[in-house]
Amino acid sequence: MRQDQRSTCPISTALEIVGDRWTLLVIRDLMFAGKRHFREFLQSEEGISSNVLTDRLGALLENGLITKDDDPTHAQKAIYSLTEKGIALLPVLAATSKWTQKHYPETRRPEAVALAQGDEQFVKELQARLRKQHRRSP
Amino acid sequence: MRQDQRSTCPISTALEIVGDRWTLLVIRDLMFAGKRHFREFLQSEEGISSNVLTDRLGALLENGLITKDDDPTHAQKAIYSLTEKGIALLPVLAATSKWTQKHYPETRRPEAVALAQGDEQFVKELQARLRKQHRRSP
Repeated sequence: MRQDQRSTCPISTALEIVGDRWTLLVIRDLMFAGKRHFREFLQSEEGISSNVLTDRLGALLENGLITKDDDPTHAQKAIYSLTEKGIALLPVLAATSKWTQKHYPETRRPEAVALAQGDEQFVKELQARLRKQHRRSP
Repeated sequence: MRQDQRSTCPISTALEIVGDRWTLLVIRDLMFAGKRHFREFLQSEEGISSNVLTDRLGALLENGLITKDDDPTHAQKAIYSLTEKGIALLPVLAATSKWTQKHYPETRRPEAVALAQGDEQFVKELQARLRKQHRRSP
């Protein structure tokens, strides 16, 4: 147990890593929206601020959920990828999305329905694509 | 979409309801630890403060994830129960717990392993117990 950890409960430990209003939105953007650049995350509908985004990307890097590399196609840009540990949050996002779509029907959307229904083909293809991005990181 | 909602994304919507370091710990205590009284939540290892707990219970009530009733056995106590909408967060907690136990092995614990492995009997009995508490609420 790290010195600053509240307890060894797995749920509490997860909340110390991703338990806030923004972190899982960055994961969502990497996972489902194909976003990989700082500016792309800023453009998401929820309007994350640049300082909150910097903070959350830093924590995700430190916790090993993402990697940051120089983008070979843009000299001054960094490109972010999910690690295997980050990709492994897929079932958490799927269960969360399923819960909301059931209890807040106005949030229902076609791509999320496929995920929430546990469409195995969809999940496999998504994981394969994310792993490929990760391996390709320079 | 509510006026104060960031977007209609199901993940964003869920984070506006349970996306903080404490809310899912209260759900955890109700769901797995059999805790139902204000004082019991305060006693959990993570040390939630009384004002944060008051705030989170208020939001959970407002969002329809729990109910609050007079405890028939203690004139001055309130007793909390998960609603069906609250019980429906079980797969979110299970997926979260599974992720942490894989990536932070020091958080592994026997009762959480049963849940994370999707032990159907365990889940059914738990849901039945929680529904009984909810129906019994005075």
